[in-house]
Amino acid sequence: MIRYTHNYRVRYNETDFLGRLSIPALGDCLLDVAGLHALDISTGIDTLQQQGLTWVIAGMKFKLGTMPTINSRFDVATCVPVCTRITTQRDFVASVGGVTFAEVSSEWLIINMSTRRPVFINEVLPQLENACGDGTPLDRYKHLRHSSVGEEFVMNRTIGYSDVDVNRHLYSMRYLQMALDTFDTNFMTHNRICEIDVNFVSEVFWGQSVEIIRRSSDNIHNIEMQHNGKVVFRAEFVSTQLE
Amino acid sequence: MIRYTHNYRVRYNETDFLGRLSIPALGDCLLDVAGLHALDISTGIDTLQQQGLTWVIAGMKFKLGTMPTINSRFDVATCVPVCTRITTQRDFVASVGGVTFAEVSSEWLIINMSTRRPVFINEVLPQLENACGDGTPLDRYKHLRHSSVGEEFVMNRTIGYSDVDVNRHLYSMRYLQMALDTFDTNFMTHNRICEIDVNFVSEVFWGQSVEIIRRSSDNIHNIEMQHNGKVVFRAEFVSTQLE
Repeated sequence: MIRYTHNYRVRYNETDFLGRLSIPALGDCLLDVAGLHALDISTGIDTLQQQGLTWVIAGMKFKLGTMPTINSRFDVATCVPVCTRITTQRDFVASVGGVTFAEVSSEWLIINMSTRRPVFINEVLPQLENACGDGTPLDRYKHLRHSSVGEEFVMNRTIGYSDVDVNRHLYSMRYLQMALDTFDTNFMTHNRICEIDVNFVSEVFWGQSVEIIRRSSDNIHNIEMQHNGKVVFRAEFVSTQLE
Repeated sequence: MIRYTHNYRVRYNETDFLGRLSIPALGDCLLDVAGLHALDISTGIDTLQQQGLTWVIAGMKFKLGTMPTINSRFDVATCVPVCTRITTQRDFVASVGGVTFAEVSSEWLIINMSTRRPVFINEVLPQLENACGDGTPLDRYKHLRHSSVGEEFVMNRTIGYSDVDVNRHLYSMRYLQMALDTFDTNFMTHNRICEIDVNFVSEVFWGQSVEIIRRSSDNIHNIEMQHNGKVVFRAEFVSTQLE
């Protein structure tokens, strides 16, 4: 199936303090539907793990409207509009009653779990080609650079048991959650995040300490996560003031 | 309805690094089904918030078997076997294909959101009495005391945006997640948590710093969370070694 859709209900734990679906919880649903679609077309993590391989995410771009509230039902549709030898682009559209509230593109690699190096996708998953659609892909994330604009806010975290996933590295949405945790509740009450570019630069493992640095200038917020002074993650958030 | 059941599927983000449903993710489902049941019998948080009130959880007891793996489907059944003027006991049984893997009891209060003090439940929710079942309640959590047995492990955290819920305090399952994060992945690989007593002592708010102290002795693990030297949470975990 070229396009795959799944229906979700916003659960209590998936909302933020304002009672709206949080961005990491939306991300959880996107990764879930990606997994269901991949399972459906036999290109899932279960197929890869038998060969000592796994999918990893390289980047994402979010365009976000107003998020749904507790117990709202929403659809997430996904497809894979672009396949190259090394990467695939998977797109997501999330909607309530046919009205889109999120468009998200994502870029994926397959890595060898021992060497942690990428492999040629067409060699290990030739069947993926049949699922590659001919639709127009969503905008791709931009490659972010170090920013020195704006006041610096720094947060430290050590990667714990609950932060790592079955790939035994920091779960992708946990990077995003930590980036969002650099904002205060006052900011989140009066502003809405409307766009995010995400670069997953390096893996982070259990027990490692990371530094999360945010620099905000007007409505642009640059976030960098570092481990031992080396950049492992970058994100740029664009916010819009609520009336 | 006296007994309410909902079916869940284990999502990718709900598992730990071993690929099994995590305890906080099970807790998310329990709170979700509690919310659905309460909505069904008009005793939910939405009804209470109109009166400036909300449900808060005072304690939980978990008895846990082997947790289901990614994409497994499981049922959570809930009922309210005990109602007093000040507290209610809500029980949960989680099962896969009729085989129970978790029995959890929980105790709840209703508080005034301004004064943060409890109110008489029968006065604000007289309709709850009809839902109070006559089944045998599960074992109630025990009241925990300070432990000074075993080596001390200390972790510090500051409560961030993603940690607070619509009640604008630290989300109950986040206390448990932080408690679990005091364990290392080596321990979690070779042991399984089979029983937990949880005491939610005090609310914690955004921006506050907490210290999480674990003392382990054999298979008993006492965890205390403190804010400014004052205990806000206690838990006792019992583990069993995996073969």
